Amino acid sequence: MKNKPLILITNDDGITAPGIRTLIKIMNTIGDVVVVAPDSPQSGMGHAITVDNILQCNPVSIDNDSHLEYSCSGTPADCVKMAKNIILNRTPDLCVSGINHGANSSISVLYSGTMSAVIEAGIEGIPSIGFSLLDYNWNANFKESEDFIKKIALNVLKNGLPKGVVLNVNIPKLKKEEIKGIKICRQADGIWLENYTKRENPSGKEYYWLSGEFKNRDEGKDTDIWALENGYISIVPVHFDMTAHRAIKTLNLWNL
Amino acid sequence: MKNKPLILITNDDGITAPGIRTLIKIMNTIGDVVVVAPDSPQSGMGHAITVDNILQCNPVSIDNDSHLEYSCSGTPADCVKMAKNIILNRTPDLCVSGINHGANSSISVLYSGTMSAVIEAGIEGIPSIGFSLLDYNWNANFKESEDFIKKIALNVLKNGLPKGVVLNVNIPKLKKEEIKGIKICRQADGIWLENYTKRENPSGKEYYWLSGEFKNRDEGKDTDIWALENGYISIVPVHFDMTAHRAIKTLNLWNL
Repeated sequence: MKNKPLILITNDDGITAPGIRTLIKIMNTIGDVVVVAPDSPQSGMGHAITVDNILQCNPVSIDNDSHLEYSCSGTPADCVKMAKNIILNRTPDLCVSGINHGANSSISVLYSGTMSAVIEAGIEGIPSIGFSLLDYNWNANFKESEDFIKKIALNVLKNGLPKGVVLNVNIPKLKKEEIKGIKICRQADGIWLENYTKRENPSGKEYYWLSGEFKNRDEGKDTDIWALENGYISIVPVHFDMTAHRAIKTLNLWNL
Repeated sequence: MKNKPLILITNDDGITAPGIRTLIKIMNTIGDVVVVAPDSPQSGMGHAITVDNILQCNPVSIDNDSHLEYSCSGTPADCVKMAKNIILNRTPDLCVSGINHGANSSISVLYSGTMSAVIEAGIEGIPSIGFSLLDYNWNANFKESEDFIKKIALNVLKNGLPKGVVLNVNIPKLKKEEIKGIKICRQADGIWLENYTKRENPSGKEYYWLSGEFKNRDEGKDTDIWALENGYISIVPVHFDMTAHRAIKTLNLWNL
């Protein structure tokens, strides 16, 4: 470890979101911070990257801190790629994304822009953590989670992460003293049940708005959903090898 | 199995792409087909869903076949969600996505709109397969792969798939008789090395175009990249539990 670690920060709620402002404040107490974040909200973007359009990336100054900040037109995964290729002159020691306004537990890890940035950094070999608070409110109280976030980040800087692994951290909407601790979990088996609201535009043409409700299908007590419902911060180690290794044997029995 | 299986078809190159037209032709020989596909190309969309904008979904007729087709304004994952919630009155027996114009092997599974539709259907419990041909050309020769695609789809209809598993099928750009067979593989450890081309708009403002080059970091002979480079069709069983289960023990040793 160098004297001061280089920390890349991004998110998916956009560079002005209170969640990322809190994360910047915390990381400024640990290392040298560079922010490369989307210029607009990118929720639900999954691991999207921009291949059919141009990208812009401009220096901005939002708080009065001395760290560098860049506002980018792309997705969270684009932000990490641009940080690496265009902005930074060395590999960061840590990449953190968030603090997301709302949960990214269970299957939401797949839809999450916050986690796509974390996974992108992980592919590059950067120790990387996504933080989400279970409060969708723009004015959520991020203060209660500050000490926990710092502790987790310092642990990752000290210990590193296993090869090909990044962290998905979700924090319950509780006061600091109500949080029972931190649990290492597996991703709960859950699903989003969609609800499409049908409307008509002024010309009478139909359109839809997607909304949804999360349903937990998992009764395990070792899951992120269980931990969060029981007052714990959940950490799920996430990998980007999507191979279902156990299924290989089964498929080899097929007549192909 | 009912007499005729219900088959949902989508893609990420858009509903008029030659790849999906070939897939429709093949599936029409197997079952009752419903197409719900994006009205425009959605490459690189990863597992994006549309939460901040409206969605439209309209019946269209493109070929002279009798199957139903819907053109949607959303991403591939949106198409599957809309098919399930708005269009279909029962769960399909099979969902197929593609044939993608270009590879979705190795780490590309994460960026792939083709595979995001497949994973979305898998979350819903639908046996699901993504097909990609290693030829980015719009006028690629999909004919050579038709028999293999039919064989794989029939196998999935017959055998089902293990819970939580979908298939990622990549097909080398070879003549049918040159293809050596089908191999069940793991996802190769690879990375996209980005290249950003910097330009200026007419007002002098800088912007970037992303392009990239795939680099295989994996020397294994059990990977999809190895299979494709050696004349085989690769099938990777893909799951959507992103938990790095093996890392849980390591993280439990931390001082959190």
